Amino acid sequence: MPNLVPPITTVKHCMDYKARLQELEPKVTFLMSLYLHPNISPETVIEAKKAGITGIKSYPHGVTTHSEHGVMSYEQFYPVFEEMERQNMVLNLHGELPPSAGKDITVLNAEEAFLPTLLDLHRRFPKLRIILEHCTSAAAIEAVKSCGATVAATITAHHMFLIVDDWAGDPHSFCKPVAKLPSDRRALLKTVVSGDPKFFFGTDSAPHPAETKRADRFAAGVFTQPHAVGYVLEALEQAVELGVLKAEDVTKAKLEGFLSRFGRDFYQLKDESGERTVLSKSTEAVQDILRSVDGTLEVVPFRRGKMVWTAVLK
Amino acid sequence: MPNLVPPITTVKHCMDYKARLQELEPKVTFLMSLYLHPNISPETVIEAKKAGITGIKSYPHGVTTHSEHGVMSYEQFYPVFEEMERQNMVLNLHGELPPSAGKDITVLNAEEAFLPTLLDLHRRFPKLRIILEHCTSAAAIEAVKSCGATVAATITAHHMFLIVDDWAGDPHSFCKPVAKLPSDRRALLKTVVSGDPKFFFGTDSAPHPAETKRADRFAAGVFTQPHAVGYVLEALEQAVELGVLKAEDVTKAKLEGFLSRFGRDFYQLKDESGERTVLSKSTEAVQDILRSVDGTLEVVPFRRGKMVWTAVLK
Repeated sequence: MPNLVPPITTVKHCMDYKARLQELEPKVTFLMSLYLHPNISPETVIEAKKAGITGIKSYPHGVTTHSEHGVMSYEQFYPVFEEMERQNMVLNLHGELPPSAGKDITVLNAEEAFLPTLLDLHRRFPKLRIILEHCTSAAAIEAVKSCGATVAATITAHHMFLIVDDWAGDPHSFCKPVAKLPSDRRALLKTVVSGDPKFFFGTDSAPHPAETKRADRFAAGVFTQPHAVGYVLEALEQAVELGVLKAEDVTKAKLEGFLSRFGRDFYQLKDESGERTVLSKSTEAVQDILRSVDGTLEVVPFRRGKMVWTAVLK
Repeated sequence: MPNLVPPITTVKHCMDYKARLQELEPKVTFLMSLYLHPNISPETVIEAKKAGITGIKSYPHGVTTHSEHGVMSYEQFYPVFEEMERQNMVLNLHGELPPSAGKDITVLNAEEAFLPTLLDLHRRFPKLRIILEHCTSAAAIEAVKSCGATVAATITAHHMFLIVDDWAGDPHSFCKPVAKLPSDRRALLKTVVSGDPKFFFGTDSAPHPAETKRADRFAAGVFTQPHAVGYVLEALEQAVELGVLKAEDVTKAKLEGFLSRFGRDFYQLKDESGERTVLSKSTEAVQDILRSVDGTLEVVPFRRGKMVWTAVLK
C-alpha cells in the first residue's frame, strides 16, 4: 500500500520501504506498488519495472486515508498507462469518485459512479491489467464481469460481513469504501464462491490506533490482518446458515481459487513455496485489543470478542 | 421525550417527571407524553388527558435509544388510538421500521419503509392527530403531504445540514433516523420554507456525554439545544448560498410559521406569553464542549467551533 505519509511516488522510496518490510518479514514475498501522482512519468514506469515493482495504485482525491495527493482526472496519466501496458504492470484502483465530483455523490454511490471511468480505462488500454480494489457493490461486480480478462477485482473479508447498519455507531466497522446494502453484501458473498477467477481476496487491512477510532473524528479502516483468512470462512459459514449461500456452493476448489490461486495467476506469479494453509474452527475468540510489543500502540481488531476460524500454515 | 430509563408509561411517572422539569425551568410550558407500551390502555389515555398530558410517543422496537420497549405491530394499540382520537390527544411517531422487519431494511430505508404504516394509521383513525417526528426523507415529506390536516411532521435543525457523508466518521453527527442523501436534505430545506403548516420545527436534541460518543460503540443523537433556532437560520443561509433555495423563499412569515406558529396551532395552544425571538448574526462560534456546573459531564454540541446565528428572547 503506497498511501503512506508522504506517499510513495519514486522507485527509490518504494525500494527503501520494501527493504524495511523484508527485514521485518524475510520470508514474505512483497509486491510493491507506487502511488499514482503527477511525479510519475513513463520513464518512472520503465525504471519501476526494472526494479521489480508490480503496480501503481490510484487513490481518488480526498477519498481515502492520505489520498489528498490522489488523482481526479486520468487523462494526464494516459502516457503512464500506455507504458504500464507495454511493461505489463498492474494498475490498482481505489474505485470511488471524490465527493467533489458532483452534488449527489455520497459515500454510498461513489463506487458505482466510478464504474464508467473503469470501463473507459479498459476500453482505452485493453491489455493493461487493472484491479478494482476492495469492491463493495453489486454494480461493481457486474461492471468487472462485463470487462475482458485483464480486469479483476478484490473483495475484503470485512465487506463480506458488513452493511451500512454496522458502521452506523461503530468506528471499528467504518472504512472506505463504506459497506453498503444487504443486497450488495449478498452479491459479494455469491461472487466469492462463484469460482470466477476475476475475483480474489484482498484484505485492505488497516491497523489504525484505537485512539484514532474513539475520537471526535475517526479514521476509516478495518483491521483484519491477524485473522484475515479465518474471517472469510466465518463469513461464508454465516451466509450458509442465513440461506444466502448453499453449503454445496462452498467448495475447497473455489476457496483455494479465491484465497490463493486467482490472485497469484492474475499477478502472474508461480506457486514456489509449496506451503499450504489449513483451516480449522477454533474455539478461541478474536482478541479485544492488540498491543504493540513496547505497549505504546493499541489496535482493535475486526469482530473483537467473536469466534473465528483459525488458519495454520503447513 | 418519554424514552428515559425506565420509559414513562404511567401518568404518575409522567407527572413526577414534569414536576422535576418545571422546578428546573418554571417559565417553560412542558408538553408531556407517554411512551407507547402494552401497559397503556384506553383507561390510561383518559387518565392522561385529565392530567394534562398531550400525547403518546411510539418508538419502533430497537430503533432508537432506549426503545427496547417499543412497538413492532400497532394492531394491539388500536383501542388506545381510538380513545386518543376521542380525547383529542397527539400520537407522536418515531417513524422507522426496525431492522428485524425485513432482510433489506437498513438505517437508510427504515423511514421510507414505515410510511405505509403511517398512511394505514391515518386511514383507520382519520381524526387522530399524528406527528411523524424528525422526518428525514423526501419520501416522508410526500407521504405527510398526501394525508389530511391531522397528520403533520417535524424537521430537526441537524437534518437541515447533514447527509450520510457527515456521519461517516463523525459520531457527533450520528443520530437516528440517520441523515440521508443530498436529495433528501434539499427536500427538507425546501419544505422548511414552503409555508406548509403540516411541517414545523422539532429539535430531537440529545445531550449524550462526550465519552459515549468517543467510544467503541457510540450513542445515536445530536445535541442542538443551545443554538437550536440559530442552526435553522444558518442552514437556510447556506442553502441560499448553494443555490438550493432562493433568498426570496426565506421570508419572516414562513420562518415564524415553521419555528413557532405551525407547531403551536397543531398542538392547539394559544400564544399567551407575548414573547418574541429576535435573531441576529453573531460573530461567536459554537462552543467546542459544554460542561455541567459540577464538571462531571461533558457534551459536544453540534457544529462545534462553527459560526451560528444567535436567538434572543424579547
